[in-house]
Formats: sequence, C-alpha cells, structure tokens
Amino acid sequence: MAMDKPVILVTNDDGITAPGIRALVEAVKGLGKVVVVAPDSPQSGMGHAVTIGEPLRLHKADVFEDIEAWECSGTPVDCVKLARDVILSYKPDLCVSGINHGANHSINVIYSGTMSAAMEAAIEGVPSIGFSLLDYRYDADFSTAKEVARTLATKMLAQRMPDHTLLNVNIPKTGVVPYKGIKICRQANAKWQEEFDKRTDPRGKDYYWMTGKFVNRDKGTNTDVEALAEGYTSVVPVKFDLTDQQTKERLEQDWKDIL
Amino acid sequence: MAMDKPVILVTNDDGITAPGIRALVEAVKGLGKVVVVAPDSPQSGMGHAVTIGEPLRLHKADVFEDIEAWECSGTPVDCVKLARDVILSYKPDLCVSGINHGANHSINVIYSGTMSAAMEAAIEGVPSIGFSLLDYRYDADFSTAKEVARTLATKMLAQRMPDHTLLNVNIPKTGVVPYKGIKICRQANAKWQEEFDKRTDPRGKDYYWMTGKFVNRDKGTNTDVEALAEGYTSVVPVKFDLTDQQTKERLEQDWKDIL
Repeated sequence: MAMDKPVILVTNDDGITAPGIRALVEAVKGLGKVVVVAPDSPQSGMGHAVTIGEPLRLHKADVFEDIEAWECSGTPVDCVKLARDVILSYKPDLCVSGINHGANHSINVIYSGTMSAAMEAAIEGVPSIGFSLLDYRYDADFSTAKEVARTLATKMLAQRMPDHTLLNVNIPKTGVVPYKGIKICRQANAKWQEEFDKRTDPRGKDYYWMTGKFVNRDKGTNTDVEALAEGYTSVVPVKFDLTDQQTKERLEQDWKDIL
Repeated sequence: MAMDKPVILVTNDDGITAPGIRALVEAVKGLGKVVVVAPDSPQSGMGHAVTIGEPLRLHKADVFEDIEAWECSGTPVDCVKLARDVILSYKPDLCVSGINHGANHSINVIYSGTMSAAMEAAIEGVPSIGFSLLDYRYDADFSTAKEVARTLATKMLAQRMPDHTLLNVNIPKTGVVPYKGIKICRQANAKWQEEFDKRTDPRGKDYYWMTGKFVNRDKGTNTDVEALAEGYTSVVPVKFDLTDQQTKERLEQDWKDIL
C-alpha cells in the first residue's frame, strides 16, 4: 500500500505511558505518519520474548494528540508483530523504539526489550533504530536524545537504507561530560556480574533479587562504552545473523572425526 | 575451585519435568559431575528475558536420581545466572541446554529460551551448547539426539574450547529421511510470517493468538535448514557480538555530515 508520507512505527519497552516514548513521538512526528504500538505495562529486560502460550489483548490508546496509538498486553516483540500484521497490514518505512530509560550499549543489546522490538522490525525488513538514554530517572532530560532521534530518523528515511538495517543508539546523560556529537562504534565486550540479594519472606521462605554490576572487559578502542564515556552518542549497526564464522571454519577442520 | 571431574551445568526452557532435559541428563551424566538448574514451568519463546522487577524462587528438586537439581521460578537466563552465582559459586566446565522439544535453527536462535540460556553461559565464559530436536511431541524419540549430545559434549570437554564458544545444535526428527550425521553450518536467513488468529471472549472483547508459518528466504548453501532437510544434525557456532561490521564501515563513510 503506497502512502504519500513515510509511515513510522514507534514502540518501546517501558510502556506506552513512559516519558521516553512521548519524547520519541515528538522527535519524529514531523517526518511522516506516526503510528504507536507499545506495551500496556513496563517490559524491561524482556529480550526477544514472544507470547505464545497466552492470548494477546490490543486496544486503541488515546495517549498522544492526533497520533494513532495502540497498547498491547504482550512483549515489545509482540507489539511489532501485531503492528505489522494486524494494525498496519503493510510494512512501515521505519521503526523507532524507545527512548529507553537507561543504557542499552554493549551486551545489553541481548537483554533489551527496546532493541529486540527494533530487531523484530529489521527481521521483517523494516529499517529500524533503538534509542536509549543513559539516565534511568522518570524525569530524565530527553532534549539531546530527541535531537539525535530526529537526525538519525531523517537520515534513515532519506537514504533508503537496506531493509535489514538496525542501529543501536545510546545517548549520554546530560551534564556529565560535554556533549560531543554522534559516533559510529562497535559493541563493547562486556557483561553483568550478578550479585543476588537473598532475603526471607514473612513466611520464612527464601527469595532472591537479581542485582549486578556492569563489567567492561573490552581493552580495545572504538567501542560504544568508550564513546559514551567521552560524551558521544554511540551508534552500533546490529545484525541478527549470529553465525560465528571463525569458529565455524575451525570446527570444520578440527572436528573431522565426528563430521 | 578445582574439581576432579568436569562440572556440567544442565538447563532448558521447557521446564525441569520435560522429557528432553531428562534425555540430556542421561546423555552427559557419565562425562562429569552434573548439576541441573531449570525453570519450574515451561518458558518457551522467552528469548533472553531476565527477571528484574520480581523476586526469584529457587528450590532443590528431587527429579533425577543421584543428580543435584534445582528448579527456579524465573526464565532460562535467570536459571544460568543463579546457577553460576548462588548454587555453584564457580564456573562449570560446560553448559548444555535442552534438549528442546522443537526446532531452534535459523532465526529461532533469537527467540529461543534454550539458546538464550546457553548464550548466557557463554557470555559468562562457559563453553556451551543448546540442543533441539525437530519434534514437538512430548513422547518424541530422543535416541539420536542423546547420542549427538554425548558426542558433542565429549568433544567440547576434551578440546578445551575457547571460553565463549557457543553451539546451536538441531537434530532431525527420527524417521523422516535417513540420518546422515553431524554437519557444521551457518544460520539460514529465515523468518516467521505471523498470522494472528482473532477471537472474541465470552464478554465480547477481542483477543489474538499468535500463529505463524516459517519462511526460509535463504537461497544459499550450507545453512542449518538445508542440512536438517537432508538428514544431518546441524551445528551452528553462535556469537553474541552483534556488530554489523559491513554497515559500520558504510555509515562511517556515508554519514560524515552528521558525525
């Protein structure tokens, strides 16, 4: 279905009432027809989860002035699937996800509902960007993030990127170091070091809260973590072919006895 | 903590009572000390979800004879994190996940709780394998899958693979085509074409069931989907650095005006 204006699908993982998605809608609404499909409750840390054992609910949501918006009972990935197949029934020109309240650089791309929603759109052949601001606060300052979102969305729409283009964009927190602009980076090799907080409930049974600290074990340069620390917005192009070519070639040689 | 025998962590996403994890325990129990940490309920399609907004429960489970086993209220990734940090408090030598009831080849690696559990272990520096059998049935024939699991686990333990080695292993369904052995492959470029089934509940409100059909859009050779169709077990080495180097280099050139 051809449209006069580009169609931009907006989603997130913090839920449809989060300030971050409002900031994103404001950032891109001048660039085309905007349709919002987002979870009806927070879905942080959902990764690429899909809802297969339960039914999904989908309702129109009167949350943004003059913008078509829908809320869904499922995960961020469910939202993108429903948007594509039930609400739009055609491919949008761009999908933007976020603006997430908190970082999704380095290994966080794996755990992030924000990035998984964007990845789902890219798998579907819709160029896509996930935005995250390094500020967890509800009243975080989204002004730089909005400018970045508008700049990158404009670029993606103007340049007709390959269908499966997917960008992981993180914006530094305002006021920590002077802002330096946008930088293309690679994913830092990092991990979360869990520290489970064991407690006992009023009935005497144990339970655990997952907490943890971030460990950057990357000694190289040009990573997203490094760029953010220097005051840059990091842009990491992401792919969903996870084949490890190097190990593949090695096993084809070394494991001949079992192949 | 040094052990005499290698320590093998076993997990899955179908839950601790699924026949597939029992088959996997049987396959590897002669190779070292086996510890099972698995979800207390089915967690298929959970992807790399982690539980951050709710507490986790963890209980000893007397499910396997002479094998230490724990069940957890969380996702497959939560199980691996708890195993590493609360139960073992040292790194196991190998993690095996599955045997999943159903395929996890091609793009399914992204949605699969089985593969996400294995990936979490690999991120943590534990060589890891996810096993899936192309048979959804509860009473599926796991005999070939068990042989494959034992062969590959033996190989991984003997060869001291690099810490972050991760394999996605799919075993063909018994009796469809003659079994041909093990083949190292790449991830096929495929996707799910959703078809949402819209229904109306007894109160007159709409809901949707996610259904879909698998679409292989890969025209090339040496894919996991191709190998499985020919009767091979497919082994795809997987990585969790998702950086798309090709797009990275292109954007560094093409987007100079905004960098």
